[in-house]
Amino acid sequence: MAAQPFHGVLVPVLTPFTASGDPDAGRFAAFCAWLLDQGANGLAIFGTTSEANSMSPGERMQLLDRLVDAGIPAEKLMPGTGACAVSDAVELVRHAVRHGCGGVLMLPPFYYKPVSDDGILAFVAGVIDKVGSSALRMYLYHIPPVAVVGYSLDLVGRLIKAYPQTVVGLKDSSGDWNNTAALLDRYPGFAVFPGSEVFLLDGLRKGGAGCITATGNVNVPGIAKVYANWQGAQAEALQAEITTLRKTMQAYPMVPALKRVVAHFHNDPAWAAVRPPLVPLDATQSAALIADLAKIGFALGEREQRAA
Amino acid sequence: MAAQPFHGVLVPVLTPFTASGDPDAGRFAAFCAWLLDQGANGLAIFGTTSEANSMSPGERMQLLDRLVDAGIPAEKLMPGTGACAVSDAVELVRHAVRHGCGGVLMLPPFYYKPVSDDGILAFVAGVIDKVGSSALRMYLYHIPPVAVVGYSLDLVGRLIKAYPQTVVGLKDSSGDWNNTAALLDRYPGFAVFPGSEVFLLDGLRKGGAGCITATGNVNVPGIAKVYANWQGAQAEALQAEITTLRKTMQAYPMVPALKRVVAHFHNDPAWAAVRPPLVPLDATQSAALIADLAKIGFALGEREQRAA
Repeated sequence: MAAQPFHGVLVPVLTPFTASGDPDAGRFAAFCAWLLDQGANGLAIFGTTSEANSMSPGERMQLLDRLVDAGIPAEKLMPGTGACAVSDAVELVRHAVRHGCGGVLMLPPFYYKPVSDDGILAFVAGVIDKVGSSALRMYLYHIPPVAVVGYSLDLVGRLIKAYPQTVVGLKDSSGDWNNTAALLDRYPGFAVFPGSEVFLLDGLRKGGAGCITATGNVNVPGIAKVYANWQGAQAEALQAEITTLRKTMQAYPMVPALKRVVAHFHNDPAWAAVRPPLVPLDATQSAALIADLAKIGFALGEREQRAA
Repeated sequence: MAAQPFHGVLVPVLTPFTASGDPDAGRFAAFCAWLLDQGANGLAIFGTTSEANSMSPGERMQLLDRLVDAGIPAEKLMPGTGACAVSDAVELVRHAVRHGCGGVLMLPPFYYKPVSDDGILAFVAGVIDKVGSSALRMYLYHIPPVAVVGYSLDLVGRLIKAYPQTVVGLKDSSGDWNNTAALLDRYPGFAVFPGSEVFLLDGLRKGGAGCITATGNVNVPGIAKVYANWQGAQAEALQAEITTLRKTMQAYPMVPALKRVVAHFHNDPAWAAVRPPLVPLDATQSAALIADLAKIGFALGEREQRAA
């Protein structure tokens, strides 16, 4: 198994859009810098939370160019490179490797259903073979609640076996702890990141690599504390705190809700914009969400807490 | 409601790939010409059967350029322009309109689940508004068994109301006759095409516009006979014949099976190639399929029958 470029708390970064609906590279770079400053160990840009599949491959690649130009270290980046077309995926992966990104996060092709493990394997193998770079580190992105198509336990094993230096980890957004546990049991040394901080402590206790979680957009310090103290006496209490925030957020559509929180606490209303097919929270939902967060004593980031 | 550019038998054309996996524009243009010669009333290129979502927008646009260059009349074409990103969809629709295509077939954005009708409406409206062409005729593509996301009956009505000159029809690949019937009842003058010839006669009797069906790739003449004779004494018998072929094909994965049939009857083995995540039929499946077709007396196209 290859060396692991990522561990700890990775954030699938929200993507801001301008009033005309275009990706807002300036706000995006500033937000990425802030997340790293908050203690994020890596940025899984262009994931589901990032509305990546609501952007064209060209828009995603331009945003990555702008991030690197803005001084965000490429080795901290794990861009999502999933696409339904092998040709699009090859272009996205090549571009990420050329920038020296620490890794890429790879959705299975998600249009056709049902598809066989053989078909998904052929797709992923086609991408890796066409890119043909020993620098590529690929993390599989398993999110059947959204993509419907996923990576079965067996398929993960076949991909590791075929590409041991390249297929080095997986983000498990199945929401199914049994699947995460089975991956950790079956494939030691393979970097498994639960897709929610709810499973962070349980995952670490079984050899997990950390987590890649939407809520990281608003709670890197809290999640990082669990990661730093998972063997300490406070681990359970710290985990309970971040689980409470997660459950509060989960009562709302996650991406619009997170954008609303960022807009509110960063005093930047433009952040609330989403791209169709997502819709922003309405005024009632927004007020209820902010009130729910107040009830659990939420404050955005350590710096804000210190400044207050 | 605007004038209807399409009626009758439309074929979601299979896309041939070269040995290296690239779209094969030459074979594609020749096959399109053959389908029109067989009596197809229109070609719904870049649908699900076409593996369109396994091609990048650039690959699709190049293929369309090549078709038009090869002399295929643009007004006979209804390219699929669906994409998860509104930016990709806008580019595809603009390109089709610039070529003078008779219409476009529009998937809803299919990555996020669940999505609201409001979100899908915002997506489609965003595309229509950004393209901003009075020449655009859009057909909604409802295929929940594959895309999962679909157009509800209410949403169809909202889109017709918002864009009566643009949103002029729908391909219903739900496989649910009750949905097709409800569309025909609710929206007179709106062109509803069942996504399978199994529903052709029933659809025509309720005011349907024809059908857009995968099996058209191998059976335009049979399906066209039902369309031409739906009010005649032979209608039921003709319908039974095409239903038999459809049911025979449906015992196999549809796209690889159709490509195998084309490869076999056109004596062109290259046609069997698919793009991942689809996988070709294996030798046993291929032999069984050809044997099943022989049992029901299938012959490819009227011309071949006459020549035999």
